[in-house]
Amino acid sequence: MLSAVARQRVLARASAWKASSSFLHQRWASTTVSSNLNSVTEEDLAHFSSFLAPSSILSTLSPSNTPADELTPFNDDWMGKYKGRSTTVLKPRTTEEVSKIVKHCNEKRIGIVPQGGNTGLVGGSVPVRDELILSLSNLNKVRSFDSVSGILVADAGCILQSLTDYLAPHSHIMPIDLGAKGSCHIGGNVSTNAGGLRLMRYGSLHGAVLGLEVVMPDGTILNQLSGLRKDNTGYDLKQLFIGAEGTLGVVTGISILAPVMPAATNAVVLALPSFDQVIPLFKIVKRDMGEILSAFEYMDRESYTLSVKHGQGKGLSEEEIEGAQCFVLIETSGGNKEHDEEKLSNLLEKVMDPDAGLVTSGVLAQSPAQFESLWAIREGIPEAIGKSGKAYKYDVSIPASKFKEFVDKTKDHLLSKGLLHENAIKGVVGYGHFGDGNIHLNIVAAAYTPEIAAALEPFVFELVASYNGSVSAEHGIGYAKTSAMRYSKDQTSIELMKKIKKLFDPNGIMNPWKVLPQ
Amino acid sequence: MLSAVARQRVLARASAWKASSSFLHQRWASTTVSSNLNSVTEEDLAHFSSFLAPSSILSTLSPSNTPADELTPFNDDWMGKYKGRSTTVLKPRTTEEVSKIVKHCNEKRIGIVPQGGNTGLVGGSVPVRDELILSLSNLNKVRSFDSVSGILVADAGCILQSLTDYLAPHSHIMPIDLGAKGSCHIGGNVSTNAGGLRLMRYGSLHGAVLGLEVVMPDGTILNQLSGLRKDNTGYDLKQLFIGAEGTLGVVTGISILAPVMPAATNAVVLALPSFDQVIPLFKIVKRDMGEILSAFEYMDRESYTLSVKHGQGKGLSEEEIEGAQCFVLIETSGGNKEHDEEKLSNLLEKVMDPDAGLVTSGVLAQSPAQFESLWAIREGIPEAIGKSGKAYKYDVSIPASKFKEFVDKTKDHLLSKGLLHENAIKGVVGYGHFGDGNIHLNIVAAAYTPEIAAALEPFVFELVASYNGSVSAEHGIGYAKTSAMRYSKDQTSIELMKKIKKLFDPNGIMNPWKVLPQ
Repeated sequence: MLSAVARQRVLARASAWKASSSFLHQRWASTTVSSNLNSVTEEDLAHFSSFLAPSSILSTLSPSNTPADELTPFNDDWMGKYKGRSTTVLKPRTTEEVSKIVKHCNEKRIGIVPQGGNTGLVGGSVPVRDELILSLSNLNKVRSFDSVSGILVADAGCILQSLTDYLAPHSHIMPIDLGAKGSCHIGGNVSTNAGGLRLMRYGSLHGAVLGLEVVMPDGTILNQLSGLRKDNTGYDLKQLFIGAEGTLGVVTGISILAPVMPAATNAVVLALPSFDQVIPLFKIVKRDMGEILSAFEYMDRESYTLSVKHGQGKGLSEEEIEGAQCFVLIETSGGNKEHDEEKLSNLLEKVMDPDAGLVTSGVLAQSPAQFESLWAIREGIPEAIGKSGKAYKYDVSIPASKFKEFVDKTKDHLLSKGLLHENAIKGVVGYGHFGDGNIHLNIVAAAYTPEIAAALEPFVFELVASYNGSVSAEHGIGYAKTSAMRYSKDQTSIELMKKIKKLFDPNGIMNPWKVLPQ
Repeated sequence: MLSAVARQRVLARASAWKASSSFLHQRWASTTVSSNLNSVTEEDLAHFSSFLAPSSILSTLSPSNTPADELTPFNDDWMGKYKGRSTTVLKPRTTEEVSKIVKHCNEKRIGIVPQGGNTGLVGGSVPVRDELILSLSNLNKVRSFDSVSGILVADAGCILQSLTDYLAPHSHIMPIDLGAKGSCHIGGNVSTNAGGLRLMRYGSLHGAVLGLEVVMPDGTILNQLSGLRKDNTGYDLKQLFIGAEGTLGVVTGISILAPVMPAATNAVVLALPSFDQVIPLFKIVKRDMGEILSAFEYMDRESYTLSVKHGQGKGLSEEEIEGAQCFVLIETSGGNKEHDEEKLSNLLEKVMDPDAGLVTSGVLAQSPAQFESLWAIREGIPEAIGKSGKAYKYDVSIPASKFKEFVDKTKDHLLSKGLLHENAIKGVVGYGHFGDGNIHLNIVAAAYTPEIAAALEPFVFELVASYNGSVSAEHGIGYAKTSAMRYSKDQTSIELMKKIKKLFDPNGIMNPWKVLPQ
């Protein structure tokens, strides 16, 4: 059931992003970077051949002479927004091979882009110039699973869905789930501190990841692959690599805590008369659903309407949503179907009481198909936006109580700039993970224009900063947002990050020009 | 209800540890350390007086001339095991005052011991020589609580119990609970990455802590006090300070995610015919209790018997535990009393079926008093051990499936050394957090002797290392275990920790001689 939903999510994202690729690619191509890094040479290739299997090397250089188009899936990101020019992709089969590659590159000052499923959204997983691409795809074995503790130890190149499939017969699940699960790697998830759909319930990877094996920029293997839930012996070094996007080393192995698989899942979509009801409703849901609450997703009227118009989700009738200003999707996951249904039923009785004035109408999934259909409303929004126009997209964290104000202020600003009309900006919509304080702001335009871009940035970043928010809630910094980091991190923090980068990677070979502002 | 239990835990620990203080104090006193650090002078005191209130300064130096015994509660740890010789305790009221103190100490090369509630177990919170003691006790205000997101922002010096009390009217709880809650500070909890009683349910502080404010060793204030659940903008610097025990900077403020208060709590104690049944039982409990399982504590026969003999816990009758080799205490916490009781009742019916052969007998708490009495069996073990003899204590992480083997191997080893008799070692017991893989190994001796000490170390550490375990699951390294760290961390990791220490604190003023091996 969930995997069908997941597929849909991937498609939705792909469609929405592809619409915007040509404009963004221009920005990428116009970037000029200077570098002390060297290109891969035929001598380097000969060295790599001395310890790698021929099938682990793709290179346009002699003697490999791989056709350039075979390297395209590694050089270009999946949206076609970012395009690298690497001559060489290496696919080591062991951590020791990774170590040898990195050691050589460090000695020769060759830049390295560690690459997982290449499903990132900020240009972090493809080269800026011609850095060597180190694909983790051949490091793809489960090393161990302890069904007592729930601790899974796996190679970094394992695909997230394959780990979910591996755990299913053991009645465990991965603590993380996201649209790209069919192609993203667990190593990439960890390196980007991916958020996704289960964060509200199972927390961030900083808590779920128990240990890492990392090849450091000088080739040394840092073994922190603990299979322990608790270990208070010194600084928790592994945490630095979670979310470092490959700039401090190459994650090659992961130890992670897998939760028990829930026995039952339910979903409900509610229509609310205004945003003022969302917070009182959220408080009741948090209290009454307690430990079984697994999602509380927010959609404003505009995003809901777009999704139902263009997407596959079916929710409430036209009559039922009359006068509704926004919508929420609530998901529960628990260990006992009967108990969960009773809790949800009691909740609905309470919140749908007309005297409470909280909810206009609602629909509860009565079947797996309806469950999917309700989720499709929420998950179909990006695709629907893509069909409606050119999208400017922001993924930010702000206090959930400010979701509507944030969208309204953006609208007002664009209106004051004379841009809020059919020929410029057709709509401004907000939706996202209310429970996590993570909103996706989308501006739907007739076309990408410098005027709109200038009206949006730095306005949106400054607005986020005024809420002490984050300009990247879950997508990371990558290459795209290095200059925006300062809106969420002060200079002291950025300087300390740069010192840590220098300490770990003095030659600057690891994923150059990513994460840190230049 | 819980606070009474908590008080009991504090008493139990105090009693058990005091029994061993004289022996360990000897080891502490015999330590010789060389240092480039300077003592606090009267000139330094004059400088501190220029910006601190007189009540914020305790010093035996002129002009303060505080009587030395007023400094004893700061110089000595609460067990009387570790004794410092500091002349000066400062109690700043603001982060800016902390910053000024640290900046001055850095310029003058004066060592600083940041001190919270001084409830640590490894000598991390008192001076080794005469370092300045920086007490956070006057930084004790709640800064904000957002009842929508559940995010609490508080000064580091807030006492854990006071934060629990603050949250109660908002129907939220702290994600951490431990015996010392009545005196430990949240800043100390974070700095030591304290584990405690809620880790199994709510995870470690690496997940629950959302942001920190830290005064760096040069006095700079690092503001990472995010009130956001999700923020992927650069390296997660705050993680380094969680568990650094004050060696990288002074934590002055904390942002933490507070879970919703559970509506119902239950407890049951089960007697098992042998250790072979613990794992099958744990798997069933994990699956059937799912999201409401909040504790699964293990006690071997010896520790149970000692506790019931010397403690206040009342469990099963003599007849009921005949033939039982070990015991477990299961706690549930959930949002619906009726549902939780039904789940627990179904579980007991299943596991107590004689055909299953899992459980000999069991007792379910029928009242708050019984709930406390059952917990008192588990929590009374340290006190009971203290009453039985001199205790050698180890707090380690190993795979839960090895709990019995670990205790048995230690017994066999001591037997082979001819030490397992009434006049030397009277008992070897194991108990702890089975769900977290954290066992407390206690060796009950007639007296502390060098012979027993030599038989135990490095034997126990080597045994832990053979399981790839941790020599300190939750108590940290402090001063006591710096030389044991190598059993759980390889040289590469330790060298990297030392480099980070050098980067953050080049003059080595922050909590000197703690955490890192010399």
